[in-house]
Amino acid sequence: MIKNITNVRGITCWGAHTGVKSMRRDLAIIYSKVPASAAAVFTQNQVAAAPVLVTRKHIANGMAQAIVINAGNANAATGKSGLEGAEAMALTLASELRIDKELVLVASTGIIGVKFPTTEIVAGIKENVRNLTNRSNAGSFVANAILTTDTYAKEGFVEFEVDGREINMGGVAKGSGMIHPNMATMLAFIVTDIAIDPVLLQKTVKETVDGSFNMITVDGDTSTNDMVVVLANGLAQNEKIKSKKEAGFKIFKKHLEEMMIHLAQLIVSDGEGASKFIEYEIVNAPSEAYARTMIRKISDSALVKTAMFGRDPNWGRIISAAGNAGLPFDYEKIDLYIGSEKKVVKVLEKGNPLDFDTNYIKKLLRESHLKILLDLHSGKANAKGWGTDLTTDYVLFNSVYST
Amino acid sequence: MIKNITNVRGITCWGAHTGVKSMRRDLAIIYSKVPASAAAVFTQNQVAAAPVLVTRKHIANGMAQAIVINAGNANAATGKSGLEGAEAMALTLASELRIDKELVLVASTGIIGVKFPTTEIVAGIKENVRNLTNRSNAGSFVANAILTTDTYAKEGFVEFEVDGREINMGGVAKGSGMIHPNMATMLAFIVTDIAIDPVLLQKTVKETVDGSFNMITVDGDTSTNDMVVVLANGLAQNEKIKSKKEAGFKIFKKHLEEMMIHLAQLIVSDGEGASKFIEYEIVNAPSEAYARTMIRKISDSALVKTAMFGRDPNWGRIISAAGNAGLPFDYEKIDLYIGSEKKVVKVLEKGNPLDFDTNYIKKLLRESHLKILLDLHSGKANAKGWGTDLTTDYVLFNSVYST
Repeated sequence: MIKNITNVRGITCWGAHTGVKSMRRDLAIIYSKVPASAAAVFTQNQVAAAPVLVTRKHIANGMAQAIVINAGNANAATGKSGLEGAEAMALTLASELRIDKELVLVASTGIIGVKFPTTEIVAGIKENVRNLTNRSNAGSFVANAILTTDTYAKEGFVEFEVDGREINMGGVAKGSGMIHPNMATMLAFIVTDIAIDPVLLQKTVKETVDGSFNMITVDGDTSTNDMVVVLANGLAQNEKIKSKKEAGFKIFKKHLEEMMIHLAQLIVSDGEGASKFIEYEIVNAPSEAYARTMIRKISDSALVKTAMFGRDPNWGRIISAAGNAGLPFDYEKIDLYIGSEKKVVKVLEKGNPLDFDTNYIKKLLRESHLKILLDLHSGKANAKGWGTDLTTDYVLFNSVYST
Repeated sequence: MIKNITNVRGITCWGAHTGVKSMRRDLAIIYSKVPASAAAVFTQNQVAAAPVLVTRKHIANGMAQAIVINAGNANAATGKSGLEGAEAMALTLASELRIDKELVLVASTGIIGVKFPTTEIVAGIKENVRNLTNRSNAGSFVANAILTTDTYAKEGFVEFEVDGREINMGGVAKGSGMIHPNMATMLAFIVTDIAIDPVLLQKTVKETVDGSFNMITVDGDTSTNDMVVVLANGLAQNEKIKSKKEAGFKIFKKHLEEMMIHLAQLIVSDGEGASKFIEYEIVNAPSEAYARTMIRKISDSALVKTAMFGRDPNWGRIISAAGNAGLPFDYEKIDLYIGSEKKVVKVLEKGNPLDFDTNYIKKLLRESHLKILLDLHSGKANAKGWGTDLTTDYVLFNSVYST
């Protein structure tokens, strides 16, 4: 039996089909028996969808008890009626669950700019609240109901100990499939039964998102609906974590980060038309922020991505992308390694091209999991990021499917 | 007879084949009879090629008399011997022309990270100085000798009057063709016989580059070798322009800007694997800088570019890219028009999708020159930019050609 979000104490859930999408489940509800510490990170896109506005407001006090997610319509660029639709989702679920509407968070994914089907979704919520359960298949229903063009559901689960209490943490995510006519949305919902102060939880979620979901790229665009939510309902009954100094905090943060990286990597692996999963690592950088910025620039470069598609150990493109990150950069200090996740080959040493065996590296680049490692010899900070190659399939997928 | 850089008073030039490239001309020399006011804008890439370092140093005093350009080897990531090679190019040409070596500017384009063929290029310079001429075909030889994977030569010429004196201005450029294994380089050289103060010229070149070469995108990467150089040798004998307030200055700036936009558009039109030329225009923005930043974000978006390849009037992608520019943006204020350069159709009004005829717009998007116009209704500043679509050919070109 695979464990999932239903193995977190007090969590019940359901994923249903309301008809907004023709063939697949399109509505998910996650409910905690008791109000939970809640934290979230939202899209940086200035065009934020209606559910983002509602959830931002409802989570402001650091507490939540339920999440309702619909797929098939992003409720973005939908004006006043869209905002009313998102509010109706929260209100309907709150009234069915007899909880305060501010305890309900809302998320949407799907087409942009199409009138939001409030009536169908409200009816779907009313009909499905009774199905909330902690049976394991309900977790899978949730993971499936939030998908759009993803080709598989994305779930994670981990248990660990704090204060001698067993802590459970489960997560679901959806990824970067593009749905016509619009943007891919990244959603992730993580629930845990740890007891933690909500202000500390918010800080921690921000930091862990920076090292996980913010370090993945498929096409460099940010959707109008991106959202990562963490609920911690305290039912594990550990002594409530209130400070970063506590031993329990470090254990929790480590596992939260691992969960986020796990879900983020699943999203990258399912990137549209991608043929390669690429891990980028920068070591010995002046700072973590520096390393992350540079990784994002390299992993977003169309030239680097097409080179990886073509299995070409094209170090000049990598160095040039690094030089474009807007950071001071002395390529004459760096060592560069290219290869697969199992084996990398040093191609540059202190900026000088080594006499590497091109055919051997090309063979490594036939693997599906690649690695690019840059040693900057300029400090002590390290970072990792994950991306895909750029393929002809990506272009076809995003051009042929038209409105 | 087509006029070109050879029609600028005092300018002679030549384009030759030295053998660095197997089949094509690969060395160009441009020479002014007298020292000229000189200004340049260089790549922002932190990995700057050796010729960029040399030219930056030589142009610091605002004067130059000759330019030597080689194609086939970018002289980037080539270490100490590369720098010596770039210096040898300047020194050789200076000594042949009996001028100070600081009056010689150097540019290179081609492969990165391959030992610079100093011997061949120095020999080529010595051999070809005697060919310098103002015959028209020499201008074409220069335009052709600086190309890499460009599919055609890029030239421009304009005459206008200042102080009752006829001013001539000619330019050549090379574009964004990718050469394996590395980055595309953008080079542009403009010569004119106007008399203008070098400090004022530098300011003007910076401003005009911002509205022209900096507003084009093919794949969002910046090469290690990009360089735009303007020489103004004063042989038109107008009264030397010293201030932005002079009537002659405005005329000059207008024509310099037109020349740069003309060359920049030629570069975009020759973008690798591109099937569409797209003009982006933003009107009624809070500032010109705002409009330019937003245009660059939209025109760089893989989602927008694939939509244009697919002839899809996908306004959600355009709005979402605009929302990602890191600028305050209220899409509910904006009008959006999509179509061809001849005819655009309004698809959004104050953020609301209009009931447009999708098939008619798809028909317009079959044209090779497209237009996307965004009216922000948030100020009085306007800007334009130019880009390409993203095609399967681009991906193939940049992945199949491997080292």
